[in-house]
Amino acid sequence: MTKKTALVISAHSADFVWRCGGAIALHQKLGYEVTIACLSYGERGESAKLWKQEGMTIEDVKRIRHQEATAAAAALGVSDIRFFDFGDYPLEIDKEGKYQIVDLIREVQPEFIMTHSKWDPYNTDHMYATEIALQCRMIAQAWGHNPGEKVLGAPQVYLFEPHQSEQMEWKPNTFLDISEVWESKKAAIECMQGQEHLWTFYENLAENRGNHFRRNSGGQAGGRSCQHAEGFQAIFPQCVDSL
Amino acid sequence: MTKKTALVISAHSADFVWRCGGAIALHQKLGYEVTIACLSYGERGESAKLWKQEGMTIEDVKRIRHQEATAAAAALGVSDIRFFDFGDYPLEIDKEGKYQIVDLIREVQPEFIMTHSKWDPYNTDHMYATEIALQCRMIAQAWGHNPGEKVLGAPQVYLFEPHQSEQMEWKPNTFLDISEVWESKKAAIECMQGQEHLWTFYENLAENRGNHFRRNSGGQAGGRSCQHAEGFQAIFPQCVDSL
Amino acid sequence: MTKKTALVISAHSADFVWRCGGAIALHQKLGYEVTIACLSYGERGESAKLWKQEGMTIEDVKRIRHQEATAAAAALGVSDIRFFDFGDYPLEIDKEGKYQIVDLIREVQPEFIMTHSKWDPYNTDHMYATEIALQCRMIAQAWGHNPGEKVLGAPQVYLFEPHQSEQMEWKPNTFLDISEVWESKKAAIECMQGQEHLWTFYENLAENRGNHFRRNSGGQAGGRSCQHAEGFQAIFPQCVDSL
Amino acid sequence: MTKKTALVISAHSADFVWRCGGAIALHQKLGYEVTIACLSYGERGESAKLWKQEGMTIEDVKRIRHQEATAAAAALGVSDIRFFDFGDYPLEIDKEGKYQIVDLIREVQPEFIMTHSKWDPYNTDHMYATEIALQCRMIAQAWGHNPGEKVLGAPQVYLFEPHQSEQMEWKPNTFLDISEVWESKKAAIECMQGQEHLWTFYENLAENRGNHFRRNSGGQAGGRSCQHAEGFQAIFPQCVDSL
Amino acid sequence: MTKKTALVISAHSADFVWRCGGAIALHQKLGYEVTIACLSYGERGESAKLWKQEGMTIEDVKRIRHQEATAAAAALGVSDIRFFDFGDYPLEIDKEGKYQIVDLIREVQPEFIMTHSKWDPYNTDHMYATEIALQCRMIAQAWGHNPGEKVLGAPQVYLFEPHQSEQMEWKPNTFLDISEVWESKKAAIECMQGQEHLWTFYENLAENRGNHFRRNSGGQAGGRSCQHAEGFQAIFPQCVDSL
Amino acid sequence: MTKKTALVISAHSADFVWRCGGAIALHQKLGYEVTIACLSYGERGESAKLWKQEGMTIEDVKRIRHQEATAAAAALGVSDIRFFDFGDYPLEIDKEGKYQIVDLIREVQPEFIMTHSKWDPYNTDHMYATEIALQCRMIAQAWGHNPGEKVLGAPQVYLFEPHQSEQMEWKPNTFLDISEVWESKKAAIECMQGQEHLWTFYENLAENRGNHFRRNSGGQAGGRSCQHAEGFQAIFPQCVDSL
Repeated sequence: MTKKTALVISAHSADFVWRCGGAIALHQKLGYEVTIACLSYGERGESAKLWKQEGMTIEDVKRIRHQEATAAAAALGVSDIRFFDFGDYPLEIDKEGKYQIVDLIREVQPEFIMTHSKWDPYNTDHMYATEIALQCRMIAQAWGHNPGEKVLGAPQVYLFEPHQSEQMEWKPNTFLDISEVWESKKAAIECMQGQEHLWTFYENLAENRGNHFRRNSGGQAGGRSCQHAEGFQAIFPQCVDSL
Repeated sequence: MTKKTALVISAHSADFVWRCGGAIALHQKLGYEVTIACLSYGERGESAKLWKQEGMTIEDVKRIRHQEATAAAAALGVSDIRFFDFGDYPLEIDKEGKYQIVDLIREVQPEFIMTHSKWDPYNTDHMYATEIALQCRMIAQAWGHNPGEKVLGAPQVYLFEPHQSEQMEWKPNTFLDISEVWESKKAAIECMQGQEHLWTFYENLAENRGNHFRRNSGGQAGGRSCQHAEGFQAIFPQCVDSL
Repeated sequence: MTKKTALVISAHSADFVWRCGGAIALHQKLGYEVTIACLSYGERGESAKLWKQEGMTIEDVKRIRHQEATAAAAALGVSDIRFFDFGDYPLEIDKEGKYQIVDLIREVQPEFIMTHSKWDPYNTDHMYATEIALQCRMIAQAWGHNPGEKVLGAPQVYLFEPHQSEQMEWKPNTFLDISEVWESKKAAIECMQGQEHLWTFYENLAENRGNHFRRNSGGQAGGRSCQHAEGFQAIFPQCVDSL
Repeated sequence: MTKKTALVISAHSADFVWRCGGAIALHQKLGYEVTIACLSYGERGESAKLWKQEGMTIEDVKRIRHQEATAAAAALGVSDIRFFDFGDYPLEIDKEGKYQIVDLIREVQPEFIMTHSKWDPYNTDHMYATEIALQCRMIAQAWGHNPGEKVLGAPQVYLFEPHQSEQMEWKPNTFLDISEVWESKKAAIECMQGQEHLWTFYENLAENRGNHFRRNSGGQAGGRSCQHAEGFQAIFPQCVDSL
Repeated sequence: MTKKTALVISAHSADFVWRCGGAIALHQKLGYEVTIACLSYGERGESAKLWKQEGMTIEDVKRIRHQEATAAAAALGVSDIRFFDFGDYPLEIDKEGKYQIVDLIREVQPEFIMTHSKWDPYNTDHMYATEIALQCRMIAQAWGHNPGEKVLGAPQVYLFEPHQSEQMEWKPNTFLDISEVWESKKAAIECMQGQEHLWTFYENLAENRGNHFRRNSGGQAGGRSCQHAEGFQAIFPQCVDSL
Repeated sequence: MTKKTALVISAHSADFVWRCGGAIALHQKLGYEVTIACLSYGERGESAKLWKQEGMTIEDVKRIRHQEATAAAAALGVSDIRFFDFGDYPLEIDKEGKYQIVDLIREVQPEFIMTHSKWDPYNTDHMYATEIALQCRMIAQAWGHNPGEKVLGAPQVYLFEPHQSEQMEWKPNTFLDISEVWESKKAAIECMQGQEHLWTFYENLAENRGNHFRRNSGGQAGGRSCQHAEGFQAIFPQCVDSL
């Protein structure tokens, strides 16, 4: 029997850690095979600490970011991490690049996809990645794209939490309890040596999302005991058999 | 063992039929005990056909609407339908009225609540009912309201489909497959003798929401065979253990 | 043959002048019978200049505002102006008051209604008037409200321009050419002796809306020569026989 | 005397049928010359049924789609249908392609343009077509683009109805009565042999939009008898001489 | 010379602590006189822990909440805290109540007002308080309300942070550095013995808003060292002499 | 000591005059060094009057527009105006072009940036310029882009006023008093010989924004005497030490 699968489309190689590391670790634990696609290394825009070191080159930065991301993925239980190296700041993907992503989507056939918010005035690579994710999802569904290949169904697309949720007009409609994998997420976060200034931020956030989980699952009258959570905004309606 | 429960808060006595009759019938079938609260009979504003009859009085209209709604509820498998008779066009509820609704909410302790859209420029009673539903949900959660009673948890509130979805700024994020109870919903609809002009409308709508269900559950690559569906907009985020 | 009619619902007795004086004058000229309903005199909140005079009383303010509004209406060609005197700052209308407005709506049977914006954080009376207008429109449509009276159809509701359009989240979807009645509107404006600080503002605005009219009717390639215009936001969709 | 004209900008060769076939047929009947521009054949993404046939090639699909679209246009009374063959899934148009569309817009000099919704997370080609339509409308207005040619005025752009209106954040502000040309639209729909699963959907929709037309034109107190309608969202304000 | 002043309008007696305790303490330190208005004690809805104690009465709850709030205010350096005791869950304020608030606003003549978010489906008292704040601000500006009194200017209204910012559609446009008064805010928080489950939440939040402050003031290239911050959404535009 | 700096990113060479000429002149006067970047001359789309002259060529148009813009800048006190000549209608900028803008941003190191609105269905060049401005701001912040150069901090981005504010979904949150430099702005406006039809429009607008400034700074109870103003929408939250 085939495993369930999920796919993360991450603009830069560290985004998946902060934003959906818990979801990744949890679904791996639940038996999913999660694939992480890093569209770039974030080598130019998200590696300030490395660039402050003397003699640093772009190849070095990519290599180090590759290592960190691979280690972080491993900490989350994931071995299937792909690096597209499309370049960052700005991330720009041509038709051939899109087709590579489509190939991956069809290969993975994910139950669901996780990616960035729709709007991000601070970091246009992020919203561009979302645009690309939706476009490639559409192409992967086309019977006439590489006819004969297995086409994609209609996987949900979850937008994971950006750094400043309100400024990105991101509104979570789903809270996921990640308490039982929090230690894995924390370990993955600590692989990101170059962005130590964000560690506490994301620990605080996970705790506060846990509070929101408790509030929405019943509050002082039966709310679930949840210590850490992640929020997601599902783009598409869900199809259910009961409310 | 206690049954699961659900509560419908319907501004006028026919709203529940068109807008969530399928959800009601389905959950009854699934073993839920669904309670329907009709805040008014819609005796003044939604009974045009009756008022066109010679010699009609408000008491007659209420009596007939009571009968129709009770019959429709029965067709959906529901026996617990409550009529508050708060008056319509305009629906106005004072503090005592709100407390009666709170009493009902606490009595039912619903898993979820279904009510109207947040905005409705055609029918201000509808959006007022939603406002009341949120307010009473809040009061029912208060430990200091009738101390000693069992307080309410945090049930989801689903906004059911209004007559002109886009004008009411209503966006469904949940499609429910009601194929297996469609005949019950149709029977309930046909209890509404006074509003025959809406029968075809809601049958068409159910079929088209079925199409949306199929599209969102996989489209031409594995979409579920669903013939009839209803759409809902959940107000609160959902709390989950997997995506 | 009966004349076409229109109804203005104005929170305070001067609002109709600034915001839709041109539309009023134009439709009168086109043969409509326009009725103006002033829900209050704006006696407390919009009569600063009067209150700065020694010995002023509320009765005096109302009397003067009554005179000014009647004169402004006359300048626009309107003799049918009704003063409800519901009080202002805050404007509050009980059920009996609503029924009086419903009576007027049914008496007038307007082709269209003009009123305030949906949101106004500066002046909550304005948005309350809009809420009341929608609610009374609904009641006037009810066959069971005063059975036997002629019920209302579905007149368009045009939201006229507030003082700070963007802050009120008001977006015009209709520009009306008022060039030929501009002098009447100007005369009406000049009846408002207590608010002289707004005269230039509304003349500038009318000219600039004229510019928008020209731009939207063709710009430098055939735009209509329009010197003054007013903007409106229609709430309901329009029903047409051609695009 | 020259005929009035209109232009449809359709991302794929079947979109115009479902979404504005009634408007096309009606305006042809009213004496307009309607031109349909198909930016692609939808050969890869919207021809699933064809691709399921053995031995199908992209040339075959395009040829068949060309035939179907031409036949559908004819059923709507249109002979002027242009196929740009820019490719689909993804649709991508370079500057030369845009200039071809501009040439067409200037040639047609349309009274109004019809195209897709502004947002479509399911089908990014659709929203891209709208972006292109707005951009080309702007270029066509430029006196410095191919100086000497007749520049474009400011035609309205109507966004026609997408498959899931609420998900596309599309809100109709105009309902068009297409009752008298419904049989033509139905005939055009039935030319689309490859998408039979959508036939009933769009018939239901036309009936329900007819219901909305009736409701908005007066409801139970004088609403127009309209059996089928189409909805449109006008992007720009309209310029009028009376409300 | 008179001191600058500010006013907090808090639906329940603890809201001001979590949501703007830092702003209060900071402005007191800057020489402002801050007045806190508690519209209710939150005696029924926000005192769960107290109600779980045996023999608790409403008078006891109010008394204890009064003490806690007064102590918290003191911890923030505030002695002027007013308790209106309008009742909670639901909070309802009649015209006389509004006039009492207007009296306070005129007495204080605040430079700015702080209150709740515009939308809160969890807690309708919160959004009602905002509605009341805007209405009373308007009345306080009216020359005809208690003629002879000093009328109000146009103080900014800052919406402070609700418990779940995204669900309340609250978007901060102002971050205030509260690092130097954090210990005071923390002390105030710890006065709220009945809501200990929120202490960590608001400490995490203050740290994360500090991160947002740093990011928005320059990030890794000169961002201000700010340890704790609070976010606010200003309703009205600000008037400035330089950008 | 170094001067403070600001940067304007203007899609076409005249945009800066109408939309932020006052802000430019004022900040020059305040001692800022303001740099104006014109991404194109608006040579094709915004030079209708020139193209109506016999024998006009694109080189002539650019030359004349260059002169007018330089003169207008001078009238505002600015000598540093850069012309990128990327072409207009459509404006399209490739990666090298973006890097040139990034170079300028880093050279200027602006305290704040001014550019167009986020949405503009009339003029897609405008919203494209905003997209480019955000993207280049991001690149300029990247430590890995041209390592060794001084990276950018986090300057505010102010969206200046478009021609039809409501249609562009632009909402000003900042009003700037430009009374003392109005004559300079007027002189700059009058340099735009090709667009005389807009002169009165922008004078009216400046006066009306002055009215809004007065209203928001206190109205009839202490509002500042401001004769002319400009409105801006800040994209990012501001970081402050007091409210």
